Amino acid sequence: MQLGRRASALARKELGRRFFASRPSLASQHPTGDSRGDQRRLFELAAGAGALLFAVGGAAAYARRSRPSRCEEAVAAGTKTDNLQLAHRFHDSTSPSHVSLPIPTLPPPPSSTVTLVTADGPPSPKAGEWIKGLPEYSKEQVAEHKTADKRIWVSYKDGVYDITGFIDKHPGGARRISLAAGGSIEPFWAMYQQHNKPEILEMLEEYRIGNYLRPADSPSVDDLRTTADDPYRNEPSRHPALNVVSERPFNAETPVALLADHFITPNEVFFVRNHLPVPTLEGDGYEVQISGLGFQGPLNLSLNDLKTKFQKHTVTTTIQCAGNRRHAFNQVKSVKGLNWGNGAIGTAEWSGASLRDVLSYCGVYDERARLLKAKHVQFEGWDEDLSGCPYGASIPLEKAISEHGDVILAYEMNGQPLPRDHGFPLRVIIPGVVGARQVKWLRKVIISEEESQSFWQQNDYRVFSPSVDWDRVDWRKAPAIQEYPVQSAVCDPMDGSIVPPDQEDVTVKGYAWSGGGRAIIRVDVTIDGGVTWHEANLRCRDKRCHLRTDSSYEDASKAASEPAGDEEDDDEDDEVLAQEASDFTTRPVDKAWAWALWEAHIPVPQELRGRELEICCRAVDASYNVQPESVSAIWNLRGCLCNAWDRVKVKCTTATAEAVAAAAAVGVPAAA
Amino acid sequence: MQLGRRASALARKELGRRFFASRPSLASQHPTGDSRGDQRRLFELAAGAGALLFAVGGAAAYARRSRPSRCEEAVAAGTKTDNLQLAHRFHDSTSPSHVSLPIPTLPPPPSSTVTLVTADGPPSPKAGEWIKGLPEYSKEQVAEHKTADKRIWVSYKDGVYDITGFIDKHPGGARRISLAAGGSIEPFWAMYQQHNKPEILEMLEEYRIGNYLRPADSPSVDDLRTTADDPYRNEPSRHPALNVVSERPFNAETPVALLADHFITPNEVFFVRNHLPVPTLEGDGYEVQISGLGFQGPLNLSLNDLKTKFQKHTVTTTIQCAGNRRHAFNQVKSVKGLNWGNGAIGTAEWSGASLRDVLSYCGVYDERARLLKAKHVQFEGWDEDLSGCPYGASIPLEKAISEHGDVILAYEMNGQPLPRDHGFPLRVIIPGVVGARQVKWLRKVIISEEESQSFWQQNDYRVFSPSVDWDRVDWRKAPAIQEYPVQSAVCDPMDGSIVPPDQEDVTVKGYAWSGGGRAIIRVDVTIDGGVTWHEANLRCRDKRCHLRTDSSYEDASKAASEPAGDEEDDDEDDEVLAQEASDFTTRPVDKAWAWALWEAHIPVPQELRGRELEICCRAVDASYNVQPESVSAIWNLRGCLCNAWDRVKVKCTTATAEAVAAAAAVGVPAAA
Repeated sequence: MQLGRRASALARKELGRRFFASRPSLASQHPTGDSRGDQRRLFELAAGAGALLFAVGGAAAYARRSRPSRCEEAVAAGTKTDNLQLAHRFHDSTSPSHVSLPIPTLPPPPSSTVTLVTADGPPSPKAGEWIKGLPEYSKEQVAEHKTADKRIWVSYKDGVYDITGFIDKHPGGARRISLAAGGSIEPFWAMYQQHNKPEILEMLEEYRIGNYLRPADSPSVDDLRTTADDPYRNEPSRHPALNVVSERPFNAETPVALLADHFITPNEVFFVRNHLPVPTLEGDGYEVQISGLGFQGPLNLSLNDLKTKFQKHTVTTTIQCAGNRRHAFNQVKSVKGLNWGNGAIGTAEWSGASLRDVLSYCGVYDERARLLKAKHVQFEGWDEDLSGCPYGASIPLEKAISEHGDVILAYEMNGQPLPRDHGFPLRVIIPGVVGARQVKWLRKVIISEEESQSFWQQNDYRVFSPSVDWDRVDWRKAPAIQEYPVQSAVCDPMDGSIVPPDQEDVTVKGYAWSGGGRAIIRVDVTIDGGVTWHEANLRCRDKRCHLRTDSSYEDASKAASEPAGDEEDDDEDDEVLAQEASDFTTRPVDKAWAWALWEAHIPVPQELRGRELEICCRAVDASYNVQPESVSAIWNLRGCLCNAWDRVKVKCTTATAEAVAAAAAVGVPAAA
Repeated sequence: MQLGRRASALARKELGRRFFASRPSLASQHPTGDSRGDQRRLFELAAGAGALLFAVGGAAAYARRSRPSRCEEAVAAGTKTDNLQLAHRFHDSTSPSHVSLPIPTLPPPPSSTVTLVTADGPPSPKAGEWIKGLPEYSKEQVAEHKTADKRIWVSYKDGVYDITGFIDKHPGGARRISLAAGGSIEPFWAMYQQHNKPEILEMLEEYRIGNYLRPADSPSVDDLRTTADDPYRNEPSRHPALNVVSERPFNAETPVALLADHFITPNEVFFVRNHLPVPTLEGDGYEVQISGLGFQGPLNLSLNDLKTKFQKHTVTTTIQCAGNRRHAFNQVKSVKGLNWGNGAIGTAEWSGASLRDVLSYCGVYDERARLLKAKHVQFEGWDEDLSGCPYGASIPLEKAISEHGDVILAYEMNGQPLPRDHGFPLRVIIPGVVGARQVKWLRKVIISEEESQSFWQQNDYRVFSPSVDWDRVDWRKAPAIQEYPVQSAVCDPMDGSIVPPDQEDVTVKGYAWSGGGRAIIRVDVTIDGGVTWHEANLRCRDKRCHLRTDSSYEDASKAASEPAGDEEDDDEDDEVLAQEASDFTTRPVDKAWAWALWEAHIPVPQELRGRELEICCRAVDASYNVQPESVSAIWNLRGCLCNAWDRVKVKCTTATAEAVAAAAAVGVPAAA
């Protein structure tokens, strides 16, 4: 089985090489970007022998650009209204609330657009092109086809496809392809770049059933439902693959199935945790104010100052929301907070100025800080509540000024300007610390004797005993969460997956991470309730994730952000990485800011075949802290820091491949 | 109940004050010390209004000085033999092995000695004085009386007492006094200084039944059983209260019942973890050699250099053996290693030169270390195995040279020169790190790119998954233990204690500690299997435990090492400390090198009264790491880092107070 996997991966890799070698860069074929900033920004990623293009903010956006949207038509017609008003031109202002709001079916696109693509009829249409005469389907109509009994449809550019018969032929497994059921397949192809091959595009076209009537390319879906005084009127567009946990403020997680496939989480599917509306900010003229103990008056540094006066540093860190995995607490007893699954975590490369450098430039360094009795650095964002109170947090000053803290004021995420949802134009990145302190849309940095007095620092993000309830909680009696405890989760198979009863082994994948830079030194997986523990192979890149300067950037960057497609195909590298990760004669175990991805191949003993399996994982960090066994023992009223052993159940059935595929399509995918 | 406790404590305190105010210093009454070093060293501790004398190395040693031993007589007679030969003069060299060796009953002491004390007959003998005409009992005879059915005897100086009738009148509870059953009560009185009052000494004398024939005051008990080529021939004397886990090498733990009573563990009962025989070293002329990367040749620094060329620093740290609580692993499945209970942990004030200062003096500092690719600091001790291979270990260089590492080369423990068992004359103290790296009898410090290649660094003190057995262990696959994970244990009540079925509440005490300076932020206790968790009050002294210099020493020392008696009596201070410890608006949570002691008063619900209670504790540290639930889940072949929830069972009986006392005397003490 191992050999088979390897051979298949090598074959895919070889196909990829041939493709890249023969294929001209796609960049020149692409319509030039407009001024909408990060929503539609395009970038090239060096990949193998060729250059490959894909869209940030969802490949869907790229696809949509192939014909003008109705909004753009309005703009082109000289209408000088803002986005909001534009949106209202197309919609009844009495529209019901968001969740149930149907996006109206638009008339077919004007013929001028269509002729752009299909000028000469359909002799050999390119994949995704509009084909005259085919039935036309709206987004809503596609969305109705998510299960085998109703047929499984997807869209790609201007095409609609019925892929029911293809589900269980998908080389990446039924599970992954099923994530796209009823929607666009493009976001996934942007992540799994091996799809960008002519033979795959040709094959897709075999399943073509119609043309896709995409909704207007409005500024954002949210904009369709806003009013002029709606604080959420200027939310950015989001990638459709994100699992939305709350709309306002916007919070969404990465589909867990994707997490363990990518050491670097792509910007467009990186989990979003917003406490307030996203502020609308410009990079030009943007300033951050630094003040507090030791300052005569506030000092303003422009974004340009940060970019030009200070060396650019890059650090690869994992950020995890304090509420990640909260759903498990809710299964024990209801808690207050967003019902996050396992996807409120991600890893990115962040670039910017070192906060240590900036503070040193301002005269805040170790000895002086002691004299000033400065103990904390507070951060304030531009995101505000209705009373004008900004989001705020603080960290110990020592973390900020230590040579080993690696804190940066970041203006780039994975080589791109920060997306709006991630703090454009500036946020603070604090490796090893909970997400809640890594303030986005950074407005102020304040050196102080006390912690931030913000609600989020003082009366939130603290953990209490299971016996403390809302009637008697005293927030002072627990410290503000800073370093995260050790964490891990299973990403694959998903809970409720199906394996055939005669399957000899099961492959389990997931992530693991710990706070404070403590490396993950071991991940154990069991399928028999802990009688036998199997050590997973780790894939970590500690050495390449440390803070590094521009000069060292290129090499490290190459190593840490190999394009997803290559990364996934490269089994050989995985083996080397796994070997490196488990050789502690050379592996450092500190300053491990980024997660370890892991994979275990576990034989299913005869006596367990045909039975339901409970797969359970747990990680150990460099201080030999381990995860607690049960969720109930660490239940806390705010539902933070759920780091108990993660458990998923997989079913064994004698179902046919079709039935498995059908189940997969409704979210019960087959285990790898 | 609380009020009662408080009133009684205040009464005891007042009595103590009156005693100290009226009592002249005992120091002048004491025979001057001899040259035998730390075994019989005497010191004064400032306490309350008076000065109080007690013996280090066991108050028993002090007591023994009141009449010359047979060894000393031999020395006085001009016999120029060494200790070993002396010992052999009194013993048949064919003596059986240690455990069963009876120490011979000696003839009554010569009259010249007796008359020293009892010249004028017995009108009003002082407590513990020899009384002519009383029966004489040997150590072995006293030791036979440890249980109520055989009567409970103790010795004090030259007296033997039957305290069976007093056990359950003991204000400190039957449990504590029962620790002395069958042996000397003096070591305990040295720790609980409230006993040094005339009324208590008078009361003791009411239970007098005989005179105590103490064994010869030989250099050490071990010396009686050695030969000239025995590497263990020069072991130091040890305090009889230590629970011996192995004789050779000597390993012994502090009786758990004492641990939670003292923030600072007294030197004489501090747990001892020796891997090899104790080397015999002199402070005069002692040198430590510093070498490695960046050194042209080795640099020798004398003990005097360390004391005079570098500022003296003091740090209060907890040291814990990696094997602490290993007995719990053995209950699941046998592991290799000493069968430690919960007492292989202790807290002391260590003073010496900062390793950072010393290395900086040698030119080893941050930038230079990077240039040299120096990553570790290795330590070698003077303790050697039979092949001449010394004990060795290493830590990351960053810990050693960081301003926040607080590593010191210590020559004092709790204000005294290091005891021989704790590394005399020099050891390294590494706050927040496992005991195994804190090399004693320090001979060499080596700056290196690699970790120590010693057996103990490479093939020991690493933790594996429960599924790894001795056949397939690959030591490289786990990192050397450095920082300890979060830990806690119940000290009181002890496992198997008895509570009356109508007891309304139970007081539980224990310790908690975590590695890396991560403060203990919460300890939860349950008596109903985790349905209800009770937060314990913490007693910690984080602020006063940080590294401090001589200039700041006096204040901090006063605060951190209040004499045991005062500390115990001071309920008010406990309340203040508990309040401070749970107010995280002011409490720092980093660099918490010393443990938190804790206490919880838990109501016993009606439905649990009369039933066996399982008391269970668990701690949370500043990174919100928690202890794992079950021992079996973290079982590992070497039995290291047992930090699962600690569990003790207490029984409910309708037994009379006498029966409880009797049970207490055989190690089944009543719960407080």
